[in-house]
Amino acid sequence: MSELRLTARQTADFELLANGGFAPVEGFQGHAAWETVTESMRLPDSRPWPIPVTLPSETGEVGETLTLIGHEGTRLGTLVVEEVYERDLQREAQQVYRTTDDSHPGVAALYREGSRTLAGPIQADALPSHIDAVAPYVMTPDQTRAAFAERGWSTVVGFQTRNPIHRAHEYLTKAALEIVDGLFIHPIVGETKDDDIPAGTRMRCYEVLIEHYYPAERVLLGINPAAMRYAGPREAIFHALVRANYGCTHFIVGRDHAGVGDWYGTYDAQKIFEEFEPGELGIEPLRFEHAFWCKISGGMATTKTSPSGPEDRVFLSGTKVREMLGRGERPPQEFTRPEVADVLIDAYAGEPAPV
Amino acid sequence: MSELRLTARQTADFELLANGGFAPVEGFQGHAAWETVTESMRLPDSRPWPIPVTLPSETGEVGETLTLIGHEGTRLGTLVVEEVYERDLQREAQQVYRTTDDSHPGVAALYREGSRTLAGPIQADALPSHIDAVAPYVMTPDQTRAAFAERGWSTVVGFQTRNPIHRAHEYLTKAALEIVDGLFIHPIVGETKDDDIPAGTRMRCYEVLIEHYYPAERVLLGINPAAMRYAGPREAIFHALVRANYGCTHFIVGRDHAGVGDWYGTYDAQKIFEEFEPGELGIEPLRFEHAFWCKISGGMATTKTSPSGPEDRVFLSGTKVREMLGRGERPPQEFTRPEVADVLIDAYAGEPAPV
Repeated sequence: MSELRLTARQTADFELLANGGFAPVEGFQGHAAWETVTESMRLPDSRPWPIPVTLPSETGEVGETLTLIGHEGTRLGTLVVEEVYERDLQREAQQVYRTTDDSHPGVAALYREGSRTLAGPIQADALPSHIDAVAPYVMTPDQTRAAFAERGWSTVVGFQTRNPIHRAHEYLTKAALEIVDGLFIHPIVGETKDDDIPAGTRMRCYEVLIEHYYPAERVLLGINPAAMRYAGPREAIFHALVRANYGCTHFIVGRDHAGVGDWYGTYDAQKIFEEFEPGELGIEPLRFEHAFWCKISGGMATTKTSPSGPEDRVFLSGTKVREMLGRGERPPQEFTRPEVADVLIDAYAGEPAPV
Repeated sequence: MSELRLTARQTADFELLANGGFAPVEGFQGHAAWETVTESMRLPDSRPWPIPVTLPSETGEVGETLTLIGHEGTRLGTLVVEEVYERDLQREAQQVYRTTDDSHPGVAALYREGSRTLAGPIQADALPSHIDAVAPYVMTPDQTRAAFAERGWSTVVGFQTRNPIHRAHEYLTKAALEIVDGLFIHPIVGETKDDDIPAGTRMRCYEVLIEHYYPAERVLLGINPAAMRYAGPREAIFHALVRANYGCTHFIVGRDHAGVGDWYGTYDAQKIFEEFEPGELGIEPLRFEHAFWCKISGGMATTKTSPSGPEDRVFLSGTKVREMLGRGERPPQEFTRPEVADVLIDAYAGEPAPV
């Protein structure tokens, strides 16, 4: 039987197809599904699905059964090749990413993988392995649903992130948690941009933050193996549907969710939810503004809840924060919890974090 | 034409019948409605309604048209007496208040008004007048709906209160506001218990709080003329339905909402919403825990979002706060904003507040 070695992002997609995170999608999609998903954010049977799940490959022929090897080396299972087709990558880029410009990291990744595409059902014999920092937090959707039920949570808000959680996002997760039973912090640990902070470091940040600043019985930390697409609005829907599969009833959608650079309007990822009927996605978006420390009210707030002007807010640019951490300086505690800052300072210095 | 002088609580009910705040109830209810409302929290046509709206009176006969005079002296309009009946006050007390004990202030008020009851449609020629501190904030449901629309709010959370707003409730209103477009602070200004703080003082508290700590474009202050019933769970439904009529889409329900003493379980007023079908009430309850300043996270939080134990929380009893204010001392700023404390200190000292 021929072997097919998957890329990192294909390995992540395999895991989510196999564990139910991409339900109702169960295999790598063929041309008919690619077409409807790309054009209308729907599967051929009209259920919502915003980004094609495809397996580009130079090899593999119709009728073959391929052994799939994860990028990290695990023998994952098999694919029965039912279809080989060429995707129109420019069209996919334009529809999914709203641009054909390969300076967009998601578009660049799309072009790199090529247009020849295999499709068919998979059989999963194993799930991919993860680095030690991530492995304890790997859970399938069945496992997270069971964990929520065990805790008696009937409503759970999911939080997607590809960054350390600073005060701003801590505030959003807590504001959301106030109106539901539990919080599922579900960072994405698949492929990200080179300048994003690696998953291993981030997991330590999440651990110290939860340990010190959240009540343990109201929070669960898990990981989403997916790669980031940076597809903005379409990826917000994608992220929400995956979290619905993991058992969340609510999903936090901030400004510029899953965006990068200036490719998307600030509220595009919030507005796109209006293109679906109420209840159709099986999860309710909670839309948030940017948060900051407000010096007037002496607490975290957003433009919706703070009487302050910009001069009364503690705001630091990403560049400024990276500079401070690189010099071994903690950002102000109104911006980052000191325990989180210390993990990042150690990571910037190349030292193992003291956790 | 005979005149009927209304009590303060009847005058308040007249205003809400006349302005649409009690829709779909449009007149003082007859025996059939009293029966279904009392027994099953529903009108005879099965729409939700939790507390009877009745007009007890020793005078008035079937067929008479009575001129209604508000307790403050306004000639309000007329009532066509279609029915005179005796209410079973013990049964109403047991069903609505869950007790027949007249040490419950709502039950005591019920018994005081007596069992002979007039029913029939009203015609409103005028609405009751209000004290100067309240008058600027009187709005009908049509007017608040127009105000919400003018501000572009499609989702609005209503906040019921019969107290000054301290930090705890400020926090709940802001947490709720984060997920909707606007906040409607809607204190009840009708009859309350003797030891509750008078409406005039409270309005000044709300004014200084909003002026200093909320963004003006996200908050509207109005008043609910209703009398407090202290009926706990049933009154939570009552409060929610009235706010739905005023145009709110969401409603804050804290612990022990509309409760008094130990008559109701902590979560009874939250759980009762489960007795209605989703969508049936036309407003979504947002259930909150008690809030406090958490010394560990350095901010407001609840037991759901704070890692603290009781020793790490700033908590003051109502008695303690009243003692401090009576001595002219501001409670800690983690408990009450200083501007609000000053209004209350002046009120306790019998001085006009400097606003």
